Amino acid sequence: MLYLTAVFLPFLILILFGPALIKGLQYLNFGQQIRGEGPSSHLKKKGIPTMGGILIVLAILISSFVFLDLSTEVIWALITTLAMGLIGFLDDIIKIRSKRSLGLKAREKLIGQITVGLLLALYVVFYSNIGKEILFPFTGWLINPGYLLIPFIVFIVVGFTNAVNLTDGLDGLAAGVTLIVCTALAVLCSALGYKQLAIYALIVSGACLGFVWFNSHPAQVFMGDVGSLALGGAVSALAVLSGTEFFLVIIGGIYVAEALSVMIQVGYFRLTGGKRIFRMTPLHHHYELTGLEEAQIVSRFWITSIILAILGLFSYFIIL
Amino acid sequence: MLYLTAVFLPFLILILFGPALIKGLQYLNFGQQIRGEGPSSHLKKKGIPTMGGILIVLAILISSFVFLDLSTEVIWALITTLAMGLIGFLDDIIKIRSKRSLGLKAREKLIGQITVGLLLALYVVFYSNIGKEILFPFTGWLINPGYLLIPFIVFIVVGFTNAVNLTDGLDGLAAGVTLIVCTALAVLCSALGYKQLAIYALIVSGACLGFVWFNSHPAQVFMGDVGSLALGGAVSALAVLSGTEFFLVIIGGIYVAEALSVMIQVGYFRLTGGKRIFRMTPLHHHYELTGLEEAQIVSRFWITSIILAILGLFSYFIIL
Repeated sequence: MLYLTAVFLPFLILILFGPALIKGLQYLNFGQQIRGEGPSSHLKKKGIPTMGGILIVLAILISSFVFLDLSTEVIWALITTLAMGLIGFLDDIIKIRSKRSLGLKAREKLIGQITVGLLLALYVVFYSNIGKEILFPFTGWLINPGYLLIPFIVFIVVGFTNAVNLTDGLDGLAAGVTLIVCTALAVLCSALGYKQLAIYALIVSGACLGFVWFNSHPAQVFMGDVGSLALGGAVSALAVLSGTEFFLVIIGGIYVAEALSVMIQVGYFRLTGGKRIFRMTPLHHHYELTGLEEAQIVSRFWITSIILAILGLFSYFIIL
Repeated sequence: MLYLTAVFLPFLILILFGPALIKGLQYLNFGQQIRGEGPSSHLKKKGIPTMGGILIVLAILISSFVFLDLSTEVIWALITTLAMGLIGFLDDIIKIRSKRSLGLKAREKLIGQITVGLLLALYVVFYSNIGKEILFPFTGWLINPGYLLIPFIVFIVVGFTNAVNLTDGLDGLAAGVTLIVCTALAVLCSALGYKQLAIYALIVSGACLGFVWFNSHPAQVFMGDVGSLALGGAVSALAVLSGTEFFLVIIGGIYVAEALSVMIQVGYFRLTGGKRIFRMTPLHHHYELTGLEEAQIVSRFWITSIILAILGLFSYFIIL
């Protein structure tokens, strides 16, 4: 019951306030600056407002106050979401003010993200009752890595936040994938007995579902870094607090593939002095250049996400 | 566990054999005849092969043999699916052979569908252990309508089969909506203790998920009547056998809206001697003519389906 209404409220907030937000963002001239190095077909996206993620963050915040017991560990999932959203917000604002496609310096962004990850890691290691032991898919091994948990959590939080950010490059892609990932995380958290985390995951799902309404191809609004970093924070904090980091690697395999594609491309390019493996990265641009249409790539990434979610849940239920 | 693998096998069958099927159908010149009265933007769809639903039906059949205990009532869900698929198959074949957009005569199709519905109804009333009592959403009333169940079941089966058929008019629409509907029905059947029906529902979901891979915009293949009538048979039989017909009205609200839009349009047109309420029916064509893009209408119908599925499940769990 509570699970179902937890999806519905943030969805409703997005649907009700989405049109006003889009108009507001257009009025403020928050048009997306399309990065120069993207596929040329993306030039038509100029003028579509960005920073729609503000409403995602607000919907998550309001719904959290309604449905969650914020005296429990779950508040740290919310804090991580909001803090990452704030970094994204600053990045977006600077992009728009300076009329250039890149906002905060890469180093500034990274330092901010590491700080957020570190705070979560210190909380888990020193104060929390949950998240101290990491559960392994398929085997059911439960390992407490002691203080090594700190760098591990920082790596997971920073890694996934940037991976979700990279995934946000086609209409409906990041929001749709995150909808599926969070729904699977909700099932996992619920099965593990973390009811508050499960509800939080469903709140994020509901916000994504509402956002896809406006963001699916052809998009009327983009989420911006405020949205993608917040979602990355939410997803990684959920995994960290429930000790399901390795399940997130499976369930969020699309994020992983997008991030890996960039790393492989850059690494190979440097090693070979200029050769490429993919036509363009992140991965979704590669498929665009092979001639698939945007809506088709997005649908197939969604379907792949559903299958990865099933695989991730399978790797848990096989333990029982 | 079994639930998760039940989704995966039909998906895998579709993904593995889909490309070969598309080539085969193209070779056999099974290009879809676009109906003359559709939106003009659909003319470009000429040449895309239809009858992809053959593979949906085969995947459901094979997976049913693998996962189901066919000595139980669930075999009648499979029989209804196959029988409706057969009617659709004949319809498609005649369409292609005669090079016209309409296949079987409307009356022939209806007689076939009523026969299938009647067989299921007689089975439920005289032989089955389940499906004799109808559960009401929100209230939890459980009503055994006696012999009135026979016409009611025929109405549900014929109605939903045709409604799914009408829904099959945009790339990915019918398969995507049925994916969501069957997943929700699986949760409902599982909660009601009908495990075999739940597994069957998930098999249908998996087949739809695999089909959407090839059928999402821009579609490489259409399902044809063999697909849409089979899916309609599956969905309605699942509801009938589990006594959740009224939940299907909520969860499958998109089918209902599509069918109602046609009835309202035709009724109003006759009453007023030529006036229209919608620009064109079924409903999805109306939105196309208001200027929304095909991919956008489909995404929004999917999202609406998810919300209706949540509402339908809510109307059950509120009873507990």
